[in-house]
Amino acid sequence: MSDAIVKQIEEQGAEVRRLKGDKASTEDAKTEAIQKLLALKLAYKEATGEDYVAPNARQAKPPKQQAQKPEVKKQTLLGVGTRKDDNYSEWYSEVITKAEMIEYYDVSGCYVLRPWSFAVWESIQEWFDSRIKKLGVKNCYFPMFVSNAALEREKTHIADFAPEVAWVTRAGNSEMAEPVAIRPTSETVMYPSYKKWVQSHRDLPIKLNQWCNVVRWEFKHPTPFLRTREFLWQEGHTAYANAADAEKEVFQILDLYAGVYNDLLAIPVVKGRKSEKEKFAGGDFTTTVEAYVACNGRGIQGATSHHLGQNFSKMFEISYEDPSREGERAYAWQNSWGLSTRSIGAMIMVHGDDKGLVLPPRVAAVQVIVVPVGFKTSNKDSLFDAVDKVTKDLVAGGVKAEHDLRENYNAGWKFNHWELKGVPIRFEVGPNDLAKKQVTAVIRHNGEKQQVSMDGIVASVKTLLDDIHTQMYNKALAQRDAHLKTTTDIEEFKKHLDEKCIILSPFCGLPECEEKIKNASTREDGEGAQMGAKTLCIPLEQPKQALPSKCLFPSCTEKAKAFALFGRSY
Amino acid sequence: MSDAIVKQIEEQGAEVRRLKGDKASTEDAKTEAIQKLLALKLAYKEATGEDYVAPNARQAKPPKQQAQKPEVKKQTLLGVGTRKDDNYSEWYSEVITKAEMIEYYDVSGCYVLRPWSFAVWESIQEWFDSRIKKLGVKNCYFPMFVSNAALEREKTHIADFAPEVAWVTRAGNSEMAEPVAIRPTSETVMYPSYKKWVQSHRDLPIKLNQWCNVVRWEFKHPTPFLRTREFLWQEGHTAYANAADAEKEVFQILDLYAGVYNDLLAIPVVKGRKSEKEKFAGGDFTTTVEAYVACNGRGIQGATSHHLGQNFSKMFEISYEDPSREGERAYAWQNSWGLSTRSIGAMIMVHGDDKGLVLPPRVAAVQVIVVPVGFKTSNKDSLFDAVDKVTKDLVAGGVKAEHDLRENYNAGWKFNHWELKGVPIRFEVGPNDLAKKQVTAVIRHNGEKQQVSMDGIVASVKTLLDDIHTQMYNKALAQRDAHLKTTTDIEEFKKHLDEKCIILSPFCGLPECEEKIKNASTREDGEGAQMGAKTLCIPLEQPKQALPSKCLFPSCTEKAKAFALFGRSY
Repeated sequence: MSDAIVKQIEEQGAEVRRLKGDKASTEDAKTEAIQKLLALKLAYKEATGEDYVAPNARQAKPPKQQAQKPEVKKQTLLGVGTRKDDNYSEWYSEVITKAEMIEYYDVSGCYVLRPWSFAVWESIQEWFDSRIKKLGVKNCYFPMFVSNAALEREKTHIADFAPEVAWVTRAGNSEMAEPVAIRPTSETVMYPSYKKWVQSHRDLPIKLNQWCNVVRWEFKHPTPFLRTREFLWQEGHTAYANAADAEKEVFQILDLYAGVYNDLLAIPVVKGRKSEKEKFAGGDFTTTVEAYVACNGRGIQGATSHHLGQNFSKMFEISYEDPSREGERAYAWQNSWGLSTRSIGAMIMVHGDDKGLVLPPRVAAVQVIVVPVGFKTSNKDSLFDAVDKVTKDLVAGGVKAEHDLRENYNAGWKFNHWELKGVPIRFEVGPNDLAKKQVTAVIRHNGEKQQVSMDGIVASVKTLLDDIHTQMYNKALAQRDAHLKTTTDIEEFKKHLDEKCIILSPFCGLPECEEKIKNASTREDGEGAQMGAKTLCIPLEQPKQALPSKCLFPSCTEKAKAFALFGRSY
Repeated sequence: MSDAIVKQIEEQGAEVRRLKGDKASTEDAKTEAIQKLLALKLAYKEATGEDYVAPNARQAKPPKQQAQKPEVKKQTLLGVGTRKDDNYSEWYSEVITKAEMIEYYDVSGCYVLRPWSFAVWESIQEWFDSRIKKLGVKNCYFPMFVSNAALEREKTHIADFAPEVAWVTRAGNSEMAEPVAIRPTSETVMYPSYKKWVQSHRDLPIKLNQWCNVVRWEFKHPTPFLRTREFLWQEGHTAYANAADAEKEVFQILDLYAGVYNDLLAIPVVKGRKSEKEKFAGGDFTTTVEAYVACNGRGIQGATSHHLGQNFSKMFEISYEDPSREGERAYAWQNSWGLSTRSIGAMIMVHGDDKGLVLPPRVAAVQVIVVPVGFKTSNKDSLFDAVDKVTKDLVAGGVKAEHDLRENYNAGWKFNHWELKGVPIRFEVGPNDLAKKQVTAVIRHNGEKQQVSMDGIVASVKTLLDDIHTQMYNKALAQRDAHLKTTTDIEEFKKHLDEKCIILSPFCGLPECEEKIKNASTREDGEGAQMGAKTLCIPLEQPKQALPSKCLFPSCTEKAKAFALFGRSY
């Protein structure tokens, strides 16, 4: 059975390549051929349970898989063996394990978040949590289980999530009479309670948030942080008496999400709306912050803030007697918004380099590592005392500083170790430094060295950490902007895409047209498919140039509604 | 089938009553008869899926169930309709719903933690988290799913948890080839990673903690906070190179747990060790803090800190080359320790009264509610301004204060509302107060009124909150101590038990003997079974009197090892 499909896939792949090389062929013909190819691949997956991989791509796999689940002997394997530009996927696997961010786990798609990565999440939590509380949002906790009845209440919504829902059907040795689902997101968990709580317009607004785990049992190839079956996030769910208040909040939250990326993770993002095709199922509109990963040219959705309109409130009957229209029910206007541990993956991808992880200072578990250098038996005690004092002064001043006084590792090993782990600043303290009442600071992200006086060292370090943050942000911004193109021509569009760019193009907004653009930009070049472009967002801030009337897709007859940002995407 | 069992249960129940009334019958005979009765009830449950309920107890049920899932119209149903002493179970259900701690949910054993209760949990988290971090513990996150292979590695452990484990067997519409379990606790989730991380004694200690949800699919009657199928907790898991360091930590953590109860929840606890019968399955010994609930005379396990010894490290191969014995493996010494949202249930049970919830000040989401009284159109603005200013001053000073300026509710309604919700201090601000530059403070837990000058009000309130904490603690302590008895006589023991006491008695420590004591103290009086006593703990601090050599149980021939604290228990 699957052999027959493989043969068909190979033939259809050849046909697609032929059409793409043939200038006489129409875009519609190519689109149709590609769709047929994709359908064949889907059939293959259904028959075999695995993604179709082209034969020559298949050979490259085993070493990659080996790299992903290393049985690390950490004494022997210091440093990253793969260059980021050579193979970002292997590089990523090495960095996250060797920097002790992730431990692999024996349930597919699930990973251990070790303290080094969890500390990043704690920084994000603290920052975001204090800010939503200022907006009047309160934390709570709803059950992780959802009954089938509640889950299926909103049809569009559940249609999107149903294929990935994990079901608990057995407790101990007993089959359960009514299996329960594990939340993929909590709209259907929460809104039956909202119905109970809303009896009058005075019960609104409701502004709740929870920090929790959710489960989406995807069958695509999992990647730590970026695509995992269980992940951590916050999900805010609010309900208002009028649309304007709800919509205002959508953008307040979006600004906070942009803040997490800009001000904490040192990653520039584009704020925008999702297209009809990409928006949250069951909602009115979705806003998003979109980041860019240079090493593979992909866009990455950073966090989304949805306006649900009245769709859910009508399904879940979250309503009250309308004070302005006697005898009529008014339905609440709702939002939901979420930010997940995926943000940590974006941070690693954007800032990491060939030496390993590079942590933005504001989310680093350790901001400064203090290492004694050039010590002998004669001066060891005084040097270690000095290292200890500097570290304690920094900690007392609110800097996350630690020292590394281990004597079974030499200074060179320690430098590599803390560079691999991405600590923003290394302080080297040697006899000469001590004599001059200074330390030598080495900056992780650019390797620069500078001397820092012991006098006023806390203030100096805080300034330095802020400078590092700004430099890392600016570097990422320059890299992003160098790969941000604008075009109205589909051929140029495809060329940019293959040059790892994201592209602003006029777009009509229709899902069918987006599908055609995606298919037209899917590359079947025998090295395994390169996915097509989709819209990352319709940027809130549009390019200054006038919007052309024509949509990017050649045969589209609709008018362009806005510039959309397109890209290959996570 | 079940009719036949019911007949047998009734006959056996009569036999138990006869034996208990017959002075000539031996304890062993009674024990045997009770065990037979319990076995019959188990058979009934297996046949019907429900607990056996005696016919006369059954009739009392419907109104109770009604009270537990009220469709509350909060405008009409203010105040608690049931007195705590009349029916603590109904009282509890009313309080947790009307005080907006809990919303009921359509999956049995799962409940919504509303912001009012979640804020208590956040206070506990903040307190405990900062203290374990000072001990060098780091936060992390392990997957919620566990493979069958890992789950079954430690046999004693899994034997205890297996009947309650929830299994995910389906994703979307596909049956999973290998179902995965949801963690009931994370020993088996974490320790395969610990194995990877420990290669040398230098890799120890490992000190990790996670705040997460766990699932135990119990079939006993669920109670919000106290027995739920999903609950939130923290679980710490540490590994040391030597036993002494590990054991030291067990008691450091136990002290922190005692601190959560004493210093935050204003609940006295007894620190002790669990008996062999009650200890954590697979561990060496379990320590616990035990609280007392006066309204039903039950003990309640507050939190447990386990020393696992080397049992898990041997099963999971967490070992390294022993530096002191060449060629030999040394196994890590491990602890695990957990505190859950059950603590909130204990708080409600211990402090609540007939007016509703009484929140200990240090965990209250709102510590002071400021209410304007006696205002008319003429003075409303100045009064509201004064209320607003007092509230803002308190907040600026670090007090959790809010005001209630709603004009559609009168002052009396507001008093009841905030008393029901348990806010520790109510400030009433009227024209007379304003003239005298004071406010009238009403203390929730004792109803006392006092005037507080506006001058230095922040400092006054902070002192007052501390005083309230101490008074609430002392009240609970006095209540507990009035019900803490010591006896060596089993008949007196049973009498105390029925008088809602917990009892210190000499005990040999053997599981069989504990089982006999439990059976001997089980009361079958036709009003539904009253559960027998079990050991709550062997208190670390033993009574001052000399330990009698004889164990409590009359026919026991073992020597008493220590005074154990017995009680009916959650």
